[in-house]
Amino acid sequence: MGALRIVGVDPGTLVVGYGVVDYRGSRLSTTQFGVIRAPRGDHIAQRLGFIQKELEEIIAQSKPDVVAIEKVFVKKSIPSAIRIGEARGVIMAVAAGLGVPVVEYTPAEVKKSVTGSGRASKEQIQEMVRIIFGLKEIPRPHDAADALAIAVCHCNRC
Amino acid sequence: MGALRIVGVDPGTLVVGYGVVDYRGSRLSTTQFGVIRAPRGDHIAQRLGFIQKELEEIIAQSKPDVVAIEKVFVKKSIPSAIRIGEARGVIMAVAAGLGVPVVEYTPAEVKKSVTGSGRASKEQIQEMVRIIFGLKEIPRPHDAADALAIAVCHCNRC
Repeated sequence: MGALRIVGVDPGTLVVGYGVVDYRGSRLSTTQFGVIRAPRGDHIAQRLGFIQKELEEIIAQSKPDVVAIEKVFVKKSIPSAIRIGEARGVIMAVAAGLGVPVVEYTPAEVKKSVTGSGRASKEQIQEMVRIIFGLKEIPRPHDAADALAIAVCHCNRC
Repeated sequence: MGALRIVGVDPGTLVVGYGVVDYRGSRLSTTQFGVIRAPRGDHIAQRLGFIQKELEEIIAQSKPDVVAIEKVFVKKSIPSAIRIGEARGVIMAVAAGLGVPVVEYTPAEVKKSVTGSGRASKEQIQEMVRIIFGLKEIPRPHDAADALAIAVCHCNRC
């Protein structure tokens, strides 16, 4: 059986976490994870252009079968919902533009899939990500760990 | 004095209006306007990828000095704010990726600039757009007229 490669993406307006995950047999491994950090002082358009370019490179190079992103439930305000939407839009368009299907999971689905509980804390998820991938330390910044968790969720569900 | 070329964009999740406007001396003219209509049945990622590709072509071909988009105030719901954000994000990233600066105007600024009143109706704005560009009919669909109005707003303010 061939391997399945997933790029998990944690959308943010300043920091976008990503993690490239391979699922072969029943084993999970990661070849690359980290964050795209858009220059802070820039106008939102420049930041989104930066995220677009960096993510395009990551996806084009890693050639995943699927991009998995978090379906956000913004509870705060309309302006922050628009901002999160802007980052999500760029991520989805980049994936689709490169012909890679996009799947979405809710935070509760990710939590349940990774830890067994839909009410797990951020820290519990990050520690499980460390164990799953046999890493010495929890991936930092946490956006990278969150992106890996989203990819794990897809593997567990497909 | 050289001409200023503006691409006005009216962001939407299914339909994105655009209008290419030249401002030379104190005269406004339009070389191209219309809508990008994303395939309805598609997943949101496919739709955004389609909008990205089409808009990239329009901006790359018309080579504007600036892209002007509407700063939306979603009053409805958080989910629709996220959806609008997704379309906005793609538009801004495409412009920035092609090195074109992005400016934003609120609906009230556009209304006031085009009709003289911040409380003008949609129909009044569309009729003013028709007059300004010397068109026989109001541009249809209305998203195209709205995009031209956003470009006019930028010309009046710069």
